[in-house]
Amino acid sequence: MPTVRLQIAYDGTAYHGWQIQPEDRTVEGELTRALTTILDATAPVKVQGASRTDAGVHARGQVAHFHHHSDRKLWDFARGLNALTDEDVCVVRVEEVDDTFHARHSARGKIYRYRIWHHRFTNPFLRHRAWWVRARLDVDAMRRAAEFFVGEHDFRGFRSTGCESPTTVRTMNRVDIVASDDEPTLEVIVEGQAFLQHMVRIMVGTLVDVGKGHIAPMRIGEVLQEGDRRRAGMTAPPHGLTLEKVFYPDFPWTGEEPGLGGEYLNS
Amino acid sequence: MPTVRLQIAYDGTAYHGWQIQPEDRTVEGELTRALTTILDATAPVKVQGASRTDAGVHARGQVAHFHHHSDRKLWDFARGLNALTDEDVCVVRVEEVDDTFHARHSARGKIYRYRIWHHRFTNPFLRHRAWWVRARLDVDAMRRAAEFFVGEHDFRGFRSTGCESPTTVRTMNRVDIVASDDEPTLEVIVEGQAFLQHMVRIMVGTLVDVGKGHIAPMRIGEVLQEGDRRRAGMTAPPHGLTLEKVFYPDFPWTGEEPGLGGEYLNS
Repeated sequence: MPTVRLQIAYDGTAYHGWQIQPEDRTVEGELTRALTTILDATAPVKVQGASRTDAGVHARGQVAHFHHHSDRKLWDFARGLNALTDEDVCVVRVEEVDDTFHARHSARGKIYRYRIWHHRFTNPFLRHRAWWVRARLDVDAMRRAAEFFVGEHDFRGFRSTGCESPTTVRTMNRVDIVASDDEPTLEVIVEGQAFLQHMVRIMVGTLVDVGKGHIAPMRIGEVLQEGDRRRAGMTAPPHGLTLEKVFYPDFPWTGEEPGLGGEYLNS
Repeated sequence: MPTVRLQIAYDGTAYHGWQIQPEDRTVEGELTRALTTILDATAPVKVQGASRTDAGVHARGQVAHFHHHSDRKLWDFARGLNALTDEDVCVVRVEEVDDTFHARHSARGKIYRYRIWHHRFTNPFLRHRAWWVRARLDVDAMRRAAEFFVGEHDFRGFRSTGCESPTTVRTMNRVDIVASDDEPTLEVIVEGQAFLQHMVRIMVGTLVDVGKGHIAPMRIGEVLQEGDRRRAGMTAPPHGLTLEKVFYPDFPWTGEEPGLGGEYLNS
């Protein structure tokens, strides 16, 4: 029973997130529907994703896997999945993997990118891709604050109240704040082994509060120590966030590439 | 009676073009509504645009003017127009100009940019900003074809059948085709003194037919000679097109800049 790994890019604006839901349009739901058609299956084909992105969150490097017992070629899946889904989702890579592979459990790390447009007026072209923050931001203070996140910490102060993960210790490899030279955009790049629910968005919301001067950089260290969600900042809105990459032991991938290759989706 | 010049950026996706219409949402209509509110006017305030962009066409550098006889400051217009319009339109510059200024008649030239995504699969992040052309394109052939457009020519073969302009001779200063090193995008940059209806879109549609090998580059020269619209290519779809700049005798502008400055809208 072959196992197939997908890399998927999507503009999350019109989706109620990744996870399949009975009523709402989701990325997993659309892929399941398409795959069930391609395989002419009598029951919905489970598509296991690496990350349950929230409604409005985008992805360039979401990963998923599924099993099948058909003689379909990888190219049939690439072509079929793209033909049977809308233009705001694209399967950019398809390959066969070992049957022990699991998109979620085999993942060794992820990179998220959060984009902020900080200016007095909106940017019409980034309104679904960046958080519009009207205030001037103290980027140096944000960088000092971001350093507290790096390393292994208990992140229970930086998760949603609904998060049910039994463990809250996570390791961040880097939290970088990149300012554009050309325009008032900031990108927060977060690379970690695993994340709690809303963790990146609460980290970014807290960094923006630091940038506005509402809280001191060292507050981050205190919240990591004390674990009190109420002392962290707001949850940044979903539309600034993009899941860039998911890492696996065999990354970078070397399999067949019938799709775009993630490197083409830089815009 | 002061005359005010605006530079306006918009994502045209959700607009039925620039020109005001009784039923549909248009950029001119939204600005007129906002300005009428700001000036507390009893009749709609006319906002004269430089270019009547089609439904779905974007702008970074649309220009418009209006007259008023109030004591409102330029900053009131910048703030008010941006507060009273949606996030997909932004007034990026406001300044007072000589009362002989007319956004349309005073214009000396325009730059348009047309973006093409040429790949087998869609790019979810460019679906409203670029024309998705599935074929491989022969960029060298397109460049040879584009050279025919440069200079003064009769463009009656490259306008819509509904175009009512009494003259059809226009001068193009440049038609450049810029290929990205990083991703399969092409940009067609067209700079001219004035344009006929759908002219840029028909030029681009014809260049893409050349790129596909459907017609020879020299066909452009023949259509310019013969003026037969049926021998030119298709009209490229509107959503790849952006009005980048409108030139005036006093360009580059040196007035007050309460807005963004167009240089911030590079995305």
